[in-house]
Amino acid sequence: MDKYINPLKSRYASKEMLYIFSPKFKYTTWRKLWYNLALVQKELGINISNKQLNKLSKHIENIDFELVKKYESKFQHEVMAHLYAYADLAGDDARKILHLGVTSAYLMDNTDLVQIKEALLLIENKLLKLINTLKKFSIKHKNLVTLAYTHLQEAQLTTLGKRSSLWLQSLIFDFEELKFIMSNMRFRGVKGTVGNQSSFKELFASNFEKVKDLDINLAKKMGFDKVYQITSQTYDRKFDSSILNFLSNLAQSAHKITNDIRFMQHLKEIEEHFEPHQIGSSAMPYKRNPIYSERIASLAKFIMSLQSSGGFIAATQWLERTLDDSACKRLNIPQAFLAADATLILLSKVFNNIRVNKKMIEKHVKTEMPFILTEDILMKATKNGGDRQILHEKIRIYSMKVKENIYSGTTENDLIKLILNDQSFKLTSKDIDEILNPNENIGFASYQVENFITEIIDPILEKNKEN
Amino acid sequence: MDKYINPLKSRYASKEMLYIFSPKFKYTTWRKLWYNLALVQKELGINISNKQLNKLSKHIENIDFELVKKYESKFQHEVMAHLYAYADLAGDDARKILHLGVTSAYLMDNTDLVQIKEALLLIENKLLKLINTLKKFSIKHKNLVTLAYTHLQEAQLTTLGKRSSLWLQSLIFDFEELKFIMSNMRFRGVKGTVGNQSSFKELFASNFEKVKDLDINLAKKMGFDKVYQITSQTYDRKFDSSILNFLSNLAQSAHKITNDIRFMQHLKEIEEHFEPHQIGSSAMPYKRNPIYSERIASLAKFIMSLQSSGGFIAATQWLERTLDDSACKRLNIPQAFLAADATLILLSKVFNNIRVNKKMIEKHVKTEMPFILTEDILMKATKNGGDRQILHEKIRIYSMKVKENIYSGTTENDLIKLILNDQSFKLTSKDIDEILNPNENIGFASYQVENFITEIIDPILEKNKEN
Amino acid sequence: MDKYINPLKSRYASKEMLYIFSPKFKYTTWRKLWYNLALVQKELGINISNKQLNKLSKHIENIDFELVKKYESKFQHEVMAHLYAYADLAGDDARKILHLGVTSAYLMDNTDLVQIKEALLLIENKLLKLINTLKKFSIKHKNLVTLAYTHLQEAQLTTLGKRSSLWLQSLIFDFEELKFIMSNMRFRGVKGTVGNQSSFKELFASNFEKVKDLDINLAKKMGFDKVYQITSQTYDRKFDSSILNFLSNLAQSAHKITNDIRFMQHLKEIEEHFEPHQIGSSAMPYKRNPIYSERIASLAKFIMSLQSSGGFIAATQWLERTLDDSACKRLNIPQAFLAADATLILLSKVFNNIRVNKKMIEKHVKTEMPFILTEDILMKATKNGGDRQILHEKIRIYSMKVKENIYSGTTENDLIKLILNDQSFKLTSKDIDEILNPNENIGFASYQVENFITEIIDPILEKNKEN
Amino acid sequence: MDKYINPLKSRYASKEMLYIFSPKFKYTTWRKLWYNLALVQKELGINISNKQLNKLSKHIENIDFELVKKYESKFQHEVMAHLYAYADLAGDDARKILHLGVTSAYLMDNTDLVQIKEALLLIENKLLKLINTLKKFSIKHKNLVTLAYTHLQEAQLTTLGKRSSLWLQSLIFDFEELKFIMSNMRFRGVKGTVGNQSSFKELFASNFEKVKDLDINLAKKMGFDKVYQITSQTYDRKFDSSILNFLSNLAQSAHKITNDIRFMQHLKEIEEHFEPHQIGSSAMPYKRNPIYSERIASLAKFIMSLQSSGGFIAATQWLERTLDDSACKRLNIPQAFLAADATLILLSKVFNNIRVNKKMIEKHVKTEMPFILTEDILMKATKNGGDRQILHEKIRIYSMKVKENIYSGTTENDLIKLILNDQSFKLTSKDIDEILNPNENIGFASYQVENFITEIIDPILEKNKEN
Repeated sequence: MDKYINPLKSRYASKEMLYIFSPKFKYTTWRKLWYNLALVQKELGINISNKQLNKLSKHIENIDFELVKKYESKFQHEVMAHLYAYADLAGDDARKILHLGVTSAYLMDNTDLVQIKEALLLIENKLLKLINTLKKFSIKHKNLVTLAYTHLQEAQLTTLGKRSSLWLQSLIFDFEELKFIMSNMRFRGVKGTVGNQSSFKELFASNFEKVKDLDINLAKKMGFDKVYQITSQTYDRKFDSSILNFLSNLAQSAHKITNDIRFMQHLKEIEEHFEPHQIGSSAMPYKRNPIYSERIASLAKFIMSLQSSGGFIAATQWLERTLDDSACKRLNIPQAFLAADATLILLSKVFNNIRVNKKMIEKHVKTEMPFILTEDILMKATKNGGDRQILHEKIRIYSMKVKENIYSGTTENDLIKLILNDQSFKLTSKDIDEILNPNENIGFASYQVENFITEIIDPILEKNKEN
Repeated sequence: MDKYINPLKSRYASKEMLYIFSPKFKYTTWRKLWYNLALVQKELGINISNKQLNKLSKHIENIDFELVKKYESKFQHEVMAHLYAYADLAGDDARKILHLGVTSAYLMDNTDLVQIKEALLLIENKLLKLINTLKKFSIKHKNLVTLAYTHLQEAQLTTLGKRSSLWLQSLIFDFEELKFIMSNMRFRGVKGTVGNQSSFKELFASNFEKVKDLDINLAKKMGFDKVYQITSQTYDRKFDSSILNFLSNLAQSAHKITNDIRFMQHLKEIEEHFEPHQIGSSAMPYKRNPIYSERIASLAKFIMSLQSSGGFIAATQWLERTLDDSACKRLNIPQAFLAADATLILLSKVFNNIRVNKKMIEKHVKTEMPFILTEDILMKATKNGGDRQILHEKIRIYSMKVKENIYSGTTENDLIKLILNDQSFKLTSKDIDEILNPNENIGFASYQVENFITEIIDPILEKNKEN
Repeated sequence: MDKYINPLKSRYASKEMLYIFSPKFKYTTWRKLWYNLALVQKELGINISNKQLNKLSKHIENIDFELVKKYESKFQHEVMAHLYAYADLAGDDARKILHLGVTSAYLMDNTDLVQIKEALLLIENKLLKLINTLKKFSIKHKNLVTLAYTHLQEAQLTTLGKRSSLWLQSLIFDFEELKFIMSNMRFRGVKGTVGNQSSFKELFASNFEKVKDLDINLAKKMGFDKVYQITSQTYDRKFDSSILNFLSNLAQSAHKITNDIRFMQHLKEIEEHFEPHQIGSSAMPYKRNPIYSERIASLAKFIMSLQSSGGFIAATQWLERTLDDSACKRLNIPQAFLAADATLILLSKVFNNIRVNKKMIEKHVKTEMPFILTEDILMKATKNGGDRQILHEKIRIYSMKVKENIYSGTTENDLIKLILNDQSFKLTSKDIDEILNPNENIGFASYQVENFITEIIDPILEKNKEN
Repeated sequence: MDKYINPLKSRYASKEMLYIFSPKFKYTTWRKLWYNLALVQKELGINISNKQLNKLSKHIENIDFELVKKYESKFQHEVMAHLYAYADLAGDDARKILHLGVTSAYLMDNTDLVQIKEALLLIENKLLKLINTLKKFSIKHKNLVTLAYTHLQEAQLTTLGKRSSLWLQSLIFDFEELKFIMSNMRFRGVKGTVGNQSSFKELFASNFEKVKDLDINLAKKMGFDKVYQITSQTYDRKFDSSILNFLSNLAQSAHKITNDIRFMQHLKEIEEHFEPHQIGSSAMPYKRNPIYSERIASLAKFIMSLQSSGGFIAATQWLERTLDDSACKRLNIPQAFLAADATLILLSKVFNNIRVNKKMIEKHVKTEMPFILTEDILMKATKNGGDRQILHEKIRIYSMKVKENIYSGTTENDLIKLILNDQSFKLTSKDIDEILNPNENIGFASYQVENFITEIIDPILEKNKEN
C-alpha cells in the first residue's frame, strides 16, 4: 500500500488481459520461442537431439524469477539473465543449442507480437459480444420514437433503436479495422541483429529457402500464418502505431456513445443500473449519476492520449533500430489494451442493465411536436404548389415568435394555428392531421435499423460466429 | 502581402491538391449534388421536367461568387446563399425542384466525402510512383554493402537496397491502409436533418425501396459504389479520424525515412541533390544540408499533430450532430492532405536525384569490419565446439579493450589477432579468412530484397497498374 | 477560387493578427533587423557612415516582392534573395555593411520572436477585454439563482454569476500564464551560425563586453528588454512549445466555457444572439443553434491539436540546430494564434449579445427544489441531534422512491412530506420553512463572486489598465 | 507474476515518488483532511471537544484496508467506505462530527493537490541537483573545443561546455515554469458539492468571513499558503493540464539532451558509463550503446503523449463537474510524475558517469578545420575591402569542389590553398595564420558559458539553496 497502484490493474481490467501482459506470459513465451526455434531447426536438419528438445520443453512454465533477478543484476541484460536461468534448468547439453543464431530482438519483438495478437483476440471477443448486445437493443427499440437533437437543440424525431444503431455502426468500423489489422499481422521471425539473417546463412550453408522455411514454420508454431519478409532488428514500429490508432478509434466510439448516454440520462430518458445500496453522492443522496458512462469516457481520454506516443516512436526510430521505443512500449501498448478491455467491460455492463424511461421519452416528444412538423408541413405545402424558399422563411418567422412566447413563460405552442391561418401554405386541417400521424414523423428510422442489421450486422456476426 | 500566407498553398502543395480543397471545387460539387439529386428523383418517378434538369446542368460551373457573398451576408447561412445564387441562374421553374427533400448536410457532408475521395486518389497515385521509385532504388543497391546501425552505433552489415526496402515496406503498410479505407468508403447520400429520411417518405409515398434506390443511385452518379445504410445528420466523424490516422501514418513513414537519409548524409554516404546555384548557408558556403529531408520531417510533424483533432471531434459529437466539427474540419483535413501531398512530392524529388557515395560507404564498412565479424566468429567457433556464452563474454572483453585503444587515439584494430591467439575459440587463420569473405557478411540481405519485391511489391504494382 | 482558402484567413481571424504573420510584416522586420544591426554596430564603433544608415532606413517599407522572387528562384535561399533585393535599393555603398557578421538565423529567429511578441500583445488585449466583459456579466448575475449540475444531473443551487466567475477564473489562469511568458521573453540577438558569436569576436577585437552590448542594445531597439545569454544557431524551441501550450490552455478554457453555454442554451436558460434574418437551419426553421459557441469549440480543438507539434519539434532538434522545425513552425505558430484570435473575437461576440431567460432558469430551480433541500435538511437535522450517516441513508431511500414516481409519470414531488413524517429527522414544519428561504440555498455564491472580483480580478485589471 | 507490472513501479521510479501516489499516502491524507477540518472548525467556534479531536488524530495512520474494502463493496462509494472505517476506529462520539459540512470532493480534490505539491517538490529537488551537475560539467568543459553541427552537418566550432550549457538553459526554462506553478498553487479547501459552501453558511450562521477563515486556515494546516476563492465542485482541471504541460516540457528537454548525447556517443566523443560486467548486446559483444539516454528518450515520449489527456479533460468538464476526469486522472498524473522522476534519476546517472573522449573530439575538429575557417576568412576578406556576397559565392564554389574530391576518395583538403591563390580575397598567408589560431575559432563560447552561469544559473541556485 506504499506504492502507486495502477487502477487498470486493481480495478478496471480483466484477469485475462492482465495475464497477457504479465511477466509470466512474457517469459514463458520467450521459452516457447527458444524451444520452437530448436524444434524447427532440428526439423530443418540442424544437429539437435530429442533429448535436448525435451529438456527445453519440460521447463517452459517453471520460471525461477529470483534466479533471473540475480543474473540480471549481474549482466544488466534481461535476455542474458533469462537465458542463463533457462539453461540452468535445461542443463549443459541443451545450453549449447539454446538461442542458436538468434538475438534479443527475436524474443522481445516476437513476444510483443504474440501479446498483441492475444490481446486483439480478447478485444475482438468482447467487441463481438457488445455488438450483439447493441444489435438486440436496437431491434428492441427500433420503433420507440424519441426526440433527435442537433446542436443539442430539439430537432426532429428518430427512434431509440435508430440512435443506438449509429453507435453500433461506430463499433462496426472498429471491428472492421480490427479484422484488417489481424489479417495483415505478421510474425517477426528470425532476422538477426540488423535483419540480414547472417547467422542463419552460416547455419544453413547459404540455403535461403531453408531460412525462409525456418521463418514461416516458426511463425506457424507460434500461431501466426504470415511472417515479415524483411525487418531491421525489429518489426516496423508503424505496426504498434496502428494498434494504438485502432484502440484510440475504439475509445472514440466509446466516448461518443457514453456522451450520448449521459445526455439521455440528463433528460431522464434512460438510466444506468443503480444498485439498491449504491450511494450516488455523499452530500446529495437523491442523485443518480451515470458513473459508468463517465468512467468509460474517462478511460477513453486516456487511451486516445496514448495514440501520439505510437506515432512518435515509429517516426523517430533511427536506421536499423534505436532503443528509445522500449520503455514507452512497455507502458503504452499494455495500458491501452487494459483500458480498452475495461471500456468494453463497462460498456457491456451499461447496456446489459440499462433502463429506458418510455414515459419521459414520450413527454419530450409531445412537447416539441409542432416544431418538428414544420419540415413535413414544408414538404406538403411545396407539393401543394407553394414556393419552398418563401414558406421556409415564413415558418422561420412564426417559429421565432412562438419561441419568444415560450421563453417568456407562455406554455402554449400555437405554431400550427398560425400556419393554418396563412393562405400561402395552401394547407387544410386534413393535411395537418395526416402529418400529425406519428408514423409519418420518424421517417424510415425503423426500416433503416432493420436494413442496417440485415445488410451489415448479421453477415458480420455470422462470419465471426465461432469466436 | 499584408495577410498570413499559408506555405502549403504558396510553396509546398500541388495545384491538383489545392484545387480539390478550393471553393471552385466545393461549390461546383454542390451544384452537381443538386443536379444529380433532381436527375435521380426524376428517374425514380418524381415530376421533374427535362427543361428543369437542363437549366440546372447548364449552370454548374459558372458560380457568381460576388452574388453568393451578398446572399450570405443577408442569411448568414452558406447553403441558402448558394441555393439562391444557383436558382437565380436556373430560373423560377428550376427553383421549385431545387434542394427537394434535402438539407444542408446533404451538400456539406457529401462534398467532404467527394473531396476526400479525390484527395485519396491523388495520394494513391503519388504513393504508387514513390513505391516504384523506391523499388528501383532497392534493386539497384541490393548488393551495395553498407554498415548497419543499431542504437546509432555501428552494428553489422546490411546493403543499401535492404535498408531502402524497409522504407518501401513502411510505405506498403500505408498503401494497404489507403486501399482498405477506399474500399470501405461510403457516400453519405440523402438522409435528412436527423438521418430518418422523413422528407423522402413523403416524396416517395412511404416506399423505402425507392429511397434506398435514390441513395445508391445518387452515390453512383457521384462516383461512389457504396452508401451508408444509416447516418445521423452526418456521416460518422470516425471516418475523418481514420483519414487523419492514415495521413499521420504516412507522415510517420516519411519522418522515419528522412531521418535515415539525414543520418546517411551526415555520414556522407548519400547526398540530396544540390543545385549548382543553390546556397546551403549564407554564413557557411561549404555546407550541403539535407534540406528536403528536413522539410519532409517538418511537414510530417505537422501532419502527425493534426491527428488528435480527428479523434477529439469524433469523440465529442453529441447525439444526432453538433457543429463543433465544422471549423476544425475545414482546417485539419485539407491541410493534412496538402502537407501529405507536399511530403510525397518532396520524397520523390529526393529519391529521383539522390547521390550515393560508394567510396564513403566502403570506407566505413572497412573500418568496422573486425567488430562486425565477431558474430560470425562466434557462430563458427560454436560450430567448432566452443561454448557460446563463454566465447561471447571473451569477445566482449577483447572488444572493449580494442575500443579503449581506439578512443585513446590508436587507429589499429587488432581484435582479430587477439581472437586467433586465444585457443578457446578453436579458430584457424583459414577459418577467419573464410569469414572475411564479404559475401558471407551481409547474410541474406540481397536475397531478402529480391524476395520481398517478388512476393509483396510486384503483385501490388501489378494490381494497381492502371492508376 | 481554384485553391484552398484557409478559413482562418478568409473568415475568422482579425486583420491585425493576419498582418502580424504576413510577408509584409515579416520582411519589413528583416529590414529593421538589418538596419538596427548597422545602427548599433555604428554606435559601438564600427566604421559605418550615416549615409549608409540612411540608405538602409529609407527602404524598409518598399519591398519589391517580384524582384525577391526572381532572386529566390536563382539562389533557392530566402535570406540571400531578400538581401540582394534590399541591397539593390540601398546601393553598393550600403551593401558592404549589410548583414555584417550575421547569418540567416539572425533574421529568421528574431523575426519569429517579434511576431510572437506582437501576437501575444494582441491576445493580451483581447483577453483583458473579455475578462472585463465577463466580470460585468458575473456581477450583474451574481444573485441570479440557477440550478447547478454535477454529472450533468441536477445538483444544488448556484448563481449564474458564480458560474460565469468560474469561466473568468479559467481565463485568469491563462492571463497569468501569458504575463509569465511575456515577462520571461528574450530576444535571440546576434549569435552566429552555431551560437558562438565568432564573427563578432573578429569585428569587435575580442571585446566580449561590446558584443554583449550589441546584443542587448539591438534587443531594445527591436522592443525587447532581455536577450538570451546563450543560444545555439537558434533560440530553444521549447519557447515555441510554451507558446503552443499557452494557446492550447486558452483554447481549453474557451472549449469548457462554450460547452457550458451550449448546455445552458439546450436548457433554454441562455441564448446566443440571433440576427433577425439569420437562418438556423434550412430544414428546421424553428431552430436557434448556439453556432458561435460551437465554432469556438471547434477552433479550440484545432488549437489543442497543434500543441503536440511544438513539443515534437523541441524534443527532436539535433545538436546546434536542424531544419525540421521550419515548415512546421510556419504552419503551427501562426495558425494557433489566428485561431486563438478568432476564438477571443467570438467569445466577446457571444458575451456581448447573450440573452438570459430568467423565467426558464426559475422554472428549473423550482422543479428541483425538494431534492436540493436535502443537504440543508441533513445539516439542520444533524444540528438537532440526528446521526448524519443514518439520515443520509434515509434521504437516499426516500429520494429514490420519489424519483421512481417521477420517472413513471407522476409529477408531484412529495419528498418533503416523507421527511416531515419521519421522526428520526427531528424536524418541524418551521424548520423546513426556514430552509425553504431561497437566500439560504445558494450558500455564499454571491459573496464568493464579490470576493473573487475584489481579491483577484480588480487588482489584475488595475495593473493592466493601460493595455 | 500473472498480472501486468507497470515498469515505472518495478524498475524506473523512486520509492519516494511511488509513495506519494500510494494508497497509504492518499488515505492518510484523507484522515488528515478530516482531522484538520474538525480542528479548524473547533478553533472557529464549532462545538467539537478535544476528546473527539484526539480520537481522530490518534487513528490517522492505522488504516484497515480490508475493512475499507468490505464497506466499499457494500456502498460502491469510496469515500463512504473510508468514512465508516475511520469512524469505526474513532468511535461514535467522533463519528458525529466527522465529515461535517463537506463532501467527497473535499477529500478527493484536496488530496490530489497535496500529492501534486509533494511530487513537484520532489521533482524540484532532483531538477536542482541535475542543474548543479550540468553547471559543473559546463564549467569543466567550457574551453573544450568541439565541432558544432547544424543540419547534422559539420558547421563551425563550439565548446562542449557551451553545448551543455544549452541543455542547462532548457532545464532552467523548466525550473522557472515549476516555480511559477508552485507559486500560483492553491488549495481547493471547503467548497461543497457545487462550490457554494452552503453547508457552512448553516454551520457558521451566515458568517462569510468565518468560512473564508476556515478555508485559508485549513489550507495552511495542509501546507498551502493560498486557497481558491471560488471553485465548482472541484478545482479547475486546467491546473492538472498545466502540470502535464510542465512535465511534458521537462520531457522535451530530456529528449533533446539525450538525442544530443546519442549523437555524440555515435561520434565516439562521449560515452555513457558502462559497467564492467554489462552486456551491450547478446549478439554483438563489442557494442557500447547509450541505453540510458535511449531509455530517457523513451520515457520522455510517454510523458509527452500524456499531455493531451490533460487538455482533453479540462476542455470537456461540463458545468459544475462531470466525473469523466477521475479514472484518467488516476492514470495520467501519477504516471507522468513517475516517468519524470525516472527521467531525472537517469539523467543524473548519465551525467555523473559520463566519459569524455577528448582525442576523438580533437580529431573531428582537425578534419573540418579548413571549412570552418571560411566564415572567418569571409570576415577578414570583407574587412580587407572585399565584397561579401561575391566572396561568399566563390567560397561556396571552391568548397563544393573540395567536397567533391573528398566524396571521391581524396583525403586532402586544399580549400585554403585555393583561396590564397584567388586575388579577390586580398588575403595573405599571415592573415590565414592569424585565423588558424584556435582561440579565434570558438568565438566567445567559453565567455558565454561563464556569463550565463553568473547571470542566470548562480542566482537561481543561490535562491533555491535550502531545497
